[in-house]
Amino acid sequence: MEHLSAKSNEKIKAAINIRDSSSARNESGLFFVEGARLCSDAAENSPVFRAFFTSSALKKYADKCEIILKKAEECYEISDEIAGKMSDTKNPQGVFCVCRFPQSVQNNSLKSGKYIMLENVQDPSNLGAISRTAEAIGIDGMIVCGGCDIYNPKALRASMGSALRLNIISCTDVLTFLDNAKKRGFLTLASTPSTDSVPISEIDMNGSVICIVGNEGNGITKETMDACDKRVTIPMGGRAESLNASTAAAILIWEMVRK
Amino acid sequence: MEHLSAKSNEKIKAAINIRDSSSARNESGLFFVEGARLCSDAAENSPVFRAFFTSSALKKYADKCEIILKKAEECYEISDEIAGKMSDTKNPQGVFCVCRFPQSVQNNSLKSGKYIMLENVQDPSNLGAISRTAEAIGIDGMIVCGGCDIYNPKALRASMGSALRLNIISCTDVLTFLDNAKKRGFLTLASTPSTDSVPISEIDMNGSVICIVGNEGNGITKETMDACDKRVTIPMGGRAESLNASTAAAILIWEMVRK
Repeated sequence: MEHLSAKSNEKIKAAINIRDSSSARNESGLFFVEGARLCSDAAENSPVFRAFFTSSALKKYADKCEIILKKAEECYEISDEIAGKMSDTKNPQGVFCVCRFPQSVQNNSLKSGKYIMLENVQDPSNLGAISRTAEAIGIDGMIVCGGCDIYNPKALRASMGSALRLNIISCTDVLTFLDNAKKRGFLTLASTPSTDSVPISEIDMNGSVICIVGNEGNGITKETMDACDKRVTIPMGGRAESLNASTAAAILIWEMVRK
Repeated sequence: MEHLSAKSNEKIKAAINIRDSSSARNESGLFFVEGARLCSDAAENSPVFRAFFTSSALKKYADKCEIILKKAEECYEISDEIAGKMSDTKNPQGVFCVCRFPQSVQNNSLKSGKYIMLENVQDPSNLGAISRTAEAIGIDGMIVCGGCDIYNPKALRASMGSALRLNIISCTDVLTFLDNAKKRGFLTLASTPSTDSVPISEIDMNGSVICIVGNEGNGITKETMDACDKRVTIPMGGRAESLNASTAAAILIWEMVRK
């Protein structure tokens, strides 16, 4: 295993750039993962381009590192000092991967089932929480549209790795994607706090469904709203301004599988 | 309005102690609130023992301050320096209240309706998120048992003030409380991730219901679990370890009012 000792090494700099920049992630189709558990989860679901380990991590997390070592195209040993530089946390475990977006992300041939779609959801903790709920409840996948930086390191951490285990589908052209899905029999639902829409509990969800959650402040874009079969809402009897995006998503995800 | 200028003033020290110590809150039956909006929400629902304002806050937040001034038993003007010391935030607004727990907190005569009960929920962001959901969905109240520090300043902020507007009922003796509620016709439900329990969607929730959410790590205590009519669960098809406590609570709250 090659040893990288200079902080200025191009491979270290490239990894940190992928960690810090959402545009670097989107342009390269690569994302950065830190920690033994998250890296081994990633290795089981996504191609690993480069893996970095400290010598102590290779011993301490031997089981997890083995999974990563088997899958990684390139492996490097790094010093504790470089691990400190690559890490987002105070006490780095010394395990890092740069992974390729999973294949499904570049592919929009959708199997029938229940999907939550996120449009411009901005807050990494919401992205993480929704991934976690989608995995726990067990829907068929999560469709992320431009503006949803699901591989943001904070979102990955908040998801507790769910985003690395879920079926994630990326979608660059929402209108075409929804149009194709509708032709294939999907019911497409736009969620909104507006009371001028159908209560989610009145929708027949027996078939294939895509339910969309929009931006925290502005909701779903008008174009996407208009492209959907129905506008749905979670009726609210209280006087709070609205439900948090991840709470609303949790109730919608639950309604999709509720029997 | 009396002007307090010494940081060592006993009233300032007492307010900070209430802010920082959950045992001080529980022993005194007082809680600390910061910010013009939260303080005026508190003043509308809870007796205000003491209010503190900077001179600039009295002008800048005149409308909110008026609501507080009308209700407060004692009002004090403080310097910006003291406001900095009392504040939990970087840019204090200069408005602080020490309030008395609302009357209902010391009272367990429960009106019929739907209630979420929290037992030993520890994380302030979960406490805040659950308050917010309970208010938005519009159930009849939230019952908090020992170990739920609902008036923790972080929980209040995370609730966006919901905890100050909700009907909050405190409960020191859970078993007696549940026993009384059952005698009065309440259905009592203990939520658990255990698959050896009834799916929440199969429960008839037409009457009065108390649904309990337990500690993040350990769930509901055995004594409380045994005292409930039924154990209920949110069926999970996925392979994540479990739903976050606030997500589980959101789905349970939704099920209570779902038609």
